[in-house]
Amino acid sequence: MLKRYLPILAWLPHYHRRLLGADLMAGLIVTVMVIPQSLAYALLAGLPAVVGLYASLLPQLLYTLLGTSRTLAVGPVAIIALMTGAALSSVAAPGSAEYLQAALVLSLLSGMMLLVMGSLRMGFFSNFLSHPVISGFLTASGILIAVSQLGGLLGIASSGFTLVERLMTLLPNLPDINPYTVTIGVGTLLFLVALRRYGKRSLTWLGVPASLADLLTKAGPVFAVLITTLVTWHWQLAYQGVAVVGTIPSGLPAFSLPWGDASLWRALLIPALLISLVGFVESVSMGQMLAAKRRQRISPNQELIGLGAANLAAGFTSGMPVTGGLSRTVINYDAGAQTPAAGAFAALGIGLVTLAFTGWLYYLPIATLAATITVSILTLVDIPMLRQTWRYSRSDFAAMAVTILLTLVEGIEAGIIGGVTLSIALFLYRTSRPHSALVGRVPNTEHFRNTERHDVETTPNAALLRIDESLYFANARYLEDTVYNLVASRPELEHVVLICSAVNLIDASALESLDAINARLKDSDVKLHLAEVKGPVMDQLKKSDFLEELSGRVFLSTYAAWREFSQ
Amino acid sequence: MLKRYLPILAWLPHYHRRLLGADLMAGLIVTVMVIPQSLAYALLAGLPAVVGLYASLLPQLLYTLLGTSRTLAVGPVAIIALMTGAALSSVAAPGSAEYLQAALVLSLLSGMMLLVMGSLRMGFFSNFLSHPVISGFLTASGILIAVSQLGGLLGIASSGFTLVERLMTLLPNLPDINPYTVTIGVGTLLFLVALRRYGKRSLTWLGVPASLADLLTKAGPVFAVLITTLVTWHWQLAYQGVAVVGTIPSGLPAFSLPWGDASLWRALLIPALLISLVGFVESVSMGQMLAAKRRQRISPNQELIGLGAANLAAGFTSGMPVTGGLSRTVINYDAGAQTPAAGAFAALGIGLVTLAFTGWLYYLPIATLAATITVSILTLVDIPMLRQTWRYSRSDFAAMAVTILLTLVEGIEAGIIGGVTLSIALFLYRTSRPHSALVGRVPNTEHFRNTERHDVETTPNAALLRIDESLYFANARYLEDTVYNLVASRPELEHVVLICSAVNLIDASALESLDAINARLKDSDVKLHLAEVKGPVMDQLKKSDFLEELSGRVFLSTYAAWREFSQ
Repeated sequence: MLKRYLPILAWLPHYHRRLLGADLMAGLIVTVMVIPQSLAYALLAGLPAVVGLYASLLPQLLYTLLGTSRTLAVGPVAIIALMTGAALSSVAAPGSAEYLQAALVLSLLSGMMLLVMGSLRMGFFSNFLSHPVISGFLTASGILIAVSQLGGLLGIASSGFTLVERLMTLLPNLPDINPYTVTIGVGTLLFLVALRRYGKRSLTWLGVPASLADLLTKAGPVFAVLITTLVTWHWQLAYQGVAVVGTIPSGLPAFSLPWGDASLWRALLIPALLISLVGFVESVSMGQMLAAKRRQRISPNQELIGLGAANLAAGFTSGMPVTGGLSRTVINYDAGAQTPAAGAFAALGIGLVTLAFTGWLYYLPIATLAATITVSILTLVDIPMLRQTWRYSRSDFAAMAVTILLTLVEGIEAGIIGGVTLSIALFLYRTSRPHSALVGRVPNTEHFRNTERHDVETTPNAALLRIDESLYFANARYLEDTVYNLVASRPELEHVVLICSAVNLIDASALESLDAINARLKDSDVKLHLAEVKGPVMDQLKKSDFLEELSGRVFLSTYAAWREFSQ
Repeated sequence: MLKRYLPILAWLPHYHRRLLGADLMAGLIVTVMVIPQSLAYALLAGLPAVVGLYASLLPQLLYTLLGTSRTLAVGPVAIIALMTGAALSSVAAPGSAEYLQAALVLSLLSGMMLLVMGSLRMGFFSNFLSHPVISGFLTASGILIAVSQLGGLLGIASSGFTLVERLMTLLPNLPDINPYTVTIGVGTLLFLVALRRYGKRSLTWLGVPASLADLLTKAGPVFAVLITTLVTWHWQLAYQGVAVVGTIPSGLPAFSLPWGDASLWRALLIPALLISLVGFVESVSMGQMLAAKRRQRISPNQELIGLGAANLAAGFTSGMPVTGGLSRTVINYDAGAQTPAAGAFAALGIGLVTLAFTGWLYYLPIATLAATITVSILTLVDIPMLRQTWRYSRSDFAAMAVTILLTLVEGIEAGIIGGVTLSIALFLYRTSRPHSALVGRVPNTEHFRNTERHDVETTPNAALLRIDESLYFANARYLEDTVYNLVASRPELEHVVLICSAVNLIDASALESLDAINARLKDSDVKLHLAEVKGPVMDQLKKSDFLEELSGRVFLSTYAAWREFSQ
């Protein structure tokens, strides 16, 4: 029981030396790899770089205690950073004290929402972010983030959180491009792309063992950081206009209680909800995928608790909203992490750097960070998925396209809300005009098939109508029309049998329609029958007067109805 | 073809003397009966009484041209009047010129929306007003209207459009109750209630023929109007504080183009939409019911056109929003109307009164109108329906209860919007945790039933899982969980067969989940099979790579899968 709420108890008692070795190694690798990333995401959100480090400390430790994934690494991630920046810039000026304050309120709010959802076991809530919406949102966000990094790569300023804003603020500054910055930025970018594409193959070709080649390739960003920092320091390029990370205050974050007036909290409610949901979806899908690889299970509702606690911690320790990150988790997994202890070790490592070694990051060029973000974020942009979805279903494609367009043009919130609303509307529309089929008997069997698709036996005086949808308010009237049209077009009919094998629900509106159909057919001397009504549906119908009013019978199978009327 | 857009062409060419006689008689009866009602509904909306007459002229004539129901009578109705009043009082002060202007804009907007919906064949839109929401809304509106008439019955003032507002403005005025008004109002009320309950029976008992007794009972309000008007005139009760209708300007309404600034139009958008939808639903259900009685059909989309034109006409001729009314239609039908010409005759009759005889209405007491409204509106309050719905389905009851509460406490708009939103949310929630069942074979048959409900044969190495819901984004992850839990709990499994007889749709999110399930089961050497996939679903699956990736097969029937694995 206790294990359910403190998942750490599931593995800590069985912890042993071999696991410790693996986790320590993974923790070390993650520390080194994740520091530049964390700085970059804080800058992406318009926050001081050090906030990214703060957000990688206590939040990860709390997730280690409370999370159910063995390998998830929690901290700032690209999408959430973009959403954070968009939310904050609507309530405060970037760089101001209020902006920082709002970031803490946002983390706190998001943490509280996740904890509430977890306590109420509302993990299913995230299901309403359909796959096309998420996938479209990731693609659009990838584009937005890549465009947002153009300024950093070129050494010029840009701002805003829609595509148009970004480009309109970027273009006028194009003449101010700094040649040193461009060299560092574009150089790093090309290096990383080349390494990603050819690194492993070339290294193996040179005789490097495959596992080492893999590690070296993945460590590309670390080399880029090292080299460009050294170059910038050696030639003192900061004096030539190359933007660098600069002074990062050393020391651990102070514990603080973020506050603010009610209007600030209200303004951040919707953004916090969307950040919570998107963060949860990203984290859980990542966690589930990796858990599946090792035949482990994660509990979505407990994940809400773990991520909620992590965000609360971020809010209290000058951090920014966090979640289980794609790239940092993959690094952790590939580095051989066995238990959540690896995450804790990484947090301790980052803590050590924050405490004593932030000076080493002074000369790290912003352009290098921009290049690493751009390369890693472009994997989110999934154009083939657009084509696949188009091929599979037009209405799923519509939801995806609307999400992408709204995200790019109107911003992140509009994109998600618009996409979800359209998904729901399209689903309701599809179910509001259910497929139905007149069926007949496949000769000499007990099977029944659509009379229009198959060569089957029918009876003149009885129509067997199979309804391929649950009956509820959106399609109740459509059902009436279908039956009335059927009866009007076949005056010789004496029996209508509704085959309910695909009817999983009959709500009060549909019951009302069935009542109306029954009464109206009775007036025309046509009897209404039901067949293959499912157990739960039958149980519910028994709670109404419908079965007593029904002019016909309820048949267990379509075949039973057929036998009755074909004689 | 032309007949479809001008339904009058369907009956006018075959018009003959016998029909004319019946329609003329019905038109006369409707004229007499409907005038007090029309005045009362205009007052209910906070408008001058004459607006109710204006709204019964041209709108009805246009509906005669364009509507498809043979017996529907179009004009001001109680619910729409209440909604109109609520909408207008949020943008202007009752009694002001702006208030009247806004009423015309509201009619125009509503007419335009109905026409657009009709042209785009969007009649299905009204399906989202589920039965519990409509029924709850009618009950709550009935209560609101009855309470709103209390002031008129007692001769004191009250205002507002929620229960609390009404009662809070009414209570302080209670000491000002006028004894003459109370006598007229409560007297009329008791007379009408008694007539409704005992009138027909007593008259028949006195030897009056049944049809005449019926007519006399229905004409109760006309007697009440005649008697109380005469009494008020004879004793000059207006000087004793009895409120009367007073001077009604005589003459036909002027044609005018309602205007107003953009903010007024924007403010009335949502109310106009709700008025259009509710009016359409009331009108169409009425029309369909009566058409069914005479084996006629109405076309919902053409009804939208007819009602849209009627509302446009109301906007241009100083009217108020109109729709096919419950009580005026029943009067028309019972009076023997055969074709829409009856409605046109009634409009001409009311036009004649408006032109020359409005003076006769001067001494008509407001209390009489309040009593007639109260009696007719209380039929909307349907308390047994609450109990029936509670018994049938808790979630339908929740939608109904929320609609009633919100309508009473927060107002009409909040009631409808809240009810519809909750209906949709509950439907999505219900379908997000689909019922599924492991099935086994009923011995010696080809039928398969739930292993938990029936005594059936199973196979140890194959699980037959029937999914009782379409697979879409809201339940895709739930499906994954169900299958993974199944496989985890039965390590000896080699085959999982998903029986899709109740799956009417597999959207892109669910396809993604099926892909994931397939890949994950493959990793554990469990094969995934499908059975009883419907034609349209199969067609769609063929557009993806899923069937090629599928580790198992697609069986035509569950029995075919059983035969394969039971050996």
